Amino acid sequence: FFPEMAASLWKNLLQTTKERILQQRGASLYIDAHGYEEELIKKKLQQFAGGSINLSKEDSGIGILTLNNPKLMNAFTGTMMLELQERVTELENWKDGKGLIIHGAGNTFCSGSDLNAVKAISNSQANGLLESFCNFWKTKSMNFGYKTLLCRLPLISVALVQGKAVGGGAELTTACDFRLMTPGSEIRFVHKHMGLVPGWGGAARLVRIVGSGAALRLLSGAAGVDPARALHLGLSEEMLSSSDETEALEEARAWLSQYTEGPANVIRAVKKVVTAGGELPVEAALRTEKDIFGTVWGGPANLQALVRRQRHK
Amino acid sequence: FFPEMAASLWKNLLQTTKERILQQRGASLYIDAHGYEEELIKKKLQQFAGGSINLSKEDSGIGILTLNNPKLMNAFTGTMMLELQERVTELENWKDGKGLIIHGAGNTFCSGSDLNAVKAISNSQANGLLESFCNFWKTKSMNFGYKTLLCRLPLISVALVQGKAVGGGAELTTACDFRLMTPGSEIRFVHKHMGLVPGWGGAARLVRIVGSGAALRLLSGAAGVDPARALHLGLSEEMLSSSDETEALEEARAWLSQYTEGPANVIRAVKKVVTAGGELPVEAALRTEKDIFGTVWGGPANLQALVRRQRHK
Amino acid sequence: FFPEMAASLWKNLLQTTKERILQQRGASLYIDAHGYEEELIKKKLQQFAGGSINLSKEDSGIGILTLNNPKLMNAFTGTMMLELQERVTELENWKDGKGLIIHGAGNTFCSGSDLNAVKAISNSQANGLLESFCNFWKTKSMNFGYKTLLCRLPLISVALVQGKAVGGGAELTTACDFRLMTPGSEIRFVHKHMGLVPGWGGAARLVRIVGSGAALRLLSGAAGVDPARALHLGLSEEMLSSSDETEALEEARAWLSQYTEGPANVIRAVKKVVTAGGELPVEAALRTEKDIFGTVWGGPANLQALVRRQRHK
Repeated sequence: FFPEMAASLWKNLLQTTKERILQQRGASLYIDAHGYEEELIKKKLQQFAGGSINLSKEDSGIGILTLNNPKLMNAFTGTMMLELQERVTELENWKDGKGLIIHGAGNTFCSGSDLNAVKAISNSQANGLLESFCNFWKTKSMNFGYKTLLCRLPLISVALVQGKAVGGGAELTTACDFRLMTPGSEIRFVHKHMGLVPGWGGAARLVRIVGSGAALRLLSGAAGVDPARALHLGLSEEMLSSSDETEALEEARAWLSQYTEGPANVIRAVKKVVTAGGELPVEAALRTEKDIFGTVWGGPANLQALVRRQRHK
Repeated sequence: FFPEMAASLWKNLLQTTKERILQQRGASLYIDAHGYEEELIKKKLQQFAGGSINLSKEDSGIGILTLNNPKLMNAFTGTMMLELQERVTELENWKDGKGLIIHGAGNTFCSGSDLNAVKAISNSQANGLLESFCNFWKTKSMNFGYKTLLCRLPLISVALVQGKAVGGGAELTTACDFRLMTPGSEIRFVHKHMGLVPGWGGAARLVRIVGSGAALRLLSGAAGVDPARALHLGLSEEMLSSSDETEALEEARAWLSQYTEGPANVIRAVKKVVTAGGELPVEAALRTEKDIFGTVWGGPANLQALVRRQRHK
Repeated sequence: FFPEMAASLWKNLLQTTKERILQQRGASLYIDAHGYEEELIKKKLQQFAGGSINLSKEDSGIGILTLNNPKLMNAFTGTMMLELQERVTELENWKDGKGLIIHGAGNTFCSGSDLNAVKAISNSQANGLLESFCNFWKTKSMNFGYKTLLCRLPLISVALVQGKAVGGGAELTTACDFRLMTPGSEIRFVHKHMGLVPGWGGAARLVRIVGSGAALRLLSGAAGVDPARALHLGLSEEMLSSSDETEALEEARAWLSQYTEGPANVIRAVKKVVTAGGELPVEAALRTEKDIFGTVWGGPANLQALVRRQRHK
């Protein structure tokens, strides 16, 4: 499931990154490191073209993000990474958005291998390079930590797993709030067999979803997880009934709608209090919850609900 | 289940809080903000009278806290909030206390809606008002963050859920260590339908009890949770066999006694090490655990146990 | 199950520690506190001789650590504590190590009571003594916080629970990543009945394994947990089929091998990302994961896997 193109892209990046590092050592004091890096990264990624990331924003407030590179089981090419970044920004600005479904074209999720290309670029073996990337990500809009960004979107998100979610594809599912699996599908943290571990938060997020013990078993065993096992582990919320591409998407949409029904600002506030509750230490979580409460209390939905209650009496 | 009185109390507070904020803007530099606030809050709450909070401290070391306002499904009035505060202080000072059962009168738990009155008073839309409240809470004995306070009592606490635990009532159950449900009872985080989210730690605590995914589903779905579902989610420990008010209380008392049997200082130390383990980062939890261990090691219960062991040999 | 010897050792230590504290008060300014303490502790422990801790490092990269004091159900004597410390150091330096099985001789795990001897020595009732210990542990190689140290070893660890794991023995199982139980075995946090609570991280670790609610029930109830209950609670991963000492060890070895198969540096990196994910706040966990990823990316196992993929195409 790691097609040749993915592997050669990867090796290529591996090599070119190392070359670049060597070239850069002398020059790094004299350039605008951030701008320079941004351009370097973009140019590098643009060389690996193919596939696309499509976003459809539905009137219901649910966005459908499609990983579209079916020839390579939706493995990320360089241009797909750049497009994903743009789609995430688009979602950040979608104020009516309440939910998000991420799925793959061709009835499979994502073999994800080329997410490793990004890792290659920001390889920590580069002296100081990883640090400059991190600073860059904090200060500029372009952010390759998109999997973490996805987590932080104020949208309730679902990974619809059809077919295979492997390696970086498995990691990508952990960036969503929920995972729904179709019959016969599989999530597999295959990193060990590639001589790797997750590097972009996939391990930290997996621990938060299934606990330390199960996360350690999944990552050190690298075994495939079928829908029944995923349900048992809490890695998935539900096994869908259809493995047909269109029907499964419809099922996922209906499932998610239970949770996104209501005013956008309220649903987004719910997502935010839960994220704060899971990520922050207790005291900070309590403070943040109070602040978020303040954004909806006395708001239109709250006042309308009060009027409704009195009228229905 | 949100009776008219609750709704009008709420709207009233909403309005009066906003008026007060406007009046205060000019004056805030010239008054003793803390004392002024304390009196303001108390006076405001005293205007909304009705019901009571009763506490019975049993010889077994188990306290029974009764939410008593059955006409309004035990919704909190202003005076009940003040009384709860007093009861929590009483429990803090009860050195023989080991356990606590919170239940509602009239065979239902709490519709909780008027907990929102407190939220209204401390509405974060008030410039600087919420901050002054927080400082006030830290420095004075009166503390409206009683749900968090309840968590921190060195008592093993049980919410006995009969009938409905709705909105703020559902949040109140999360302030206890355990939830026991009678047949036919329901916990429902109805906040979304009121255009709200939890604001006093209910979301953060729910995440710690059932995990981020289940918390997000409960808060964004706002569906009722019956005893079987609650058990499955880890939201409840057990379904009691009786839905009779007196029998259920007796069952809860027997259940809790398994965990409170023993010397008060040891049981309280157990509660403290677990709270530290759940709330603090690992390093701080380890330090705190060692400190708490030091309070029981070499103490009377420990020495007696050693003597017993030798004698029984 | 707390034999007389254990109890008298304990009482003895209790007393001698207090004597020592009194003697020390005048002298503490004039000695090298750290070196002095180290020698004091070692001498004290050497007085309580008996049993041994054996370590066998197998070619598979799995270490077998045997608690060997079957007459006392493998309770820790003073010399066993010193030996455990040495074995942990040996494991830290075993760069080919990938896994660890801890088990007890004589077909039982550990009654653990003499772990309390260590607690006695570092009793926090000693003014300033506990602090000096802590500083000492941080700066010197000798570290009595071995249960925490065990957790941090970059090895995937299993407690093979045969017979009884009681008190400090139950705590010791929480220092491992996984617990496997043989039919008829039992884990029991009996501390309450000894007038105690865990003091060396057992409570904090138990909360992380089974959640706050279950941890509170286990510690405040002090009831024995059989294999089926442990499995249900997430306290154990699996019930082994044999209760024979040799066969159970063979089963545990086979179970662990699923997770340790592969290059040592990759398996150790997996353990590290999961530990970071479970112990650190989100941001720090993400940074650490990225750093650990950097240690394997582009490494021999990773490059070989890439070559393999291309060849198999």
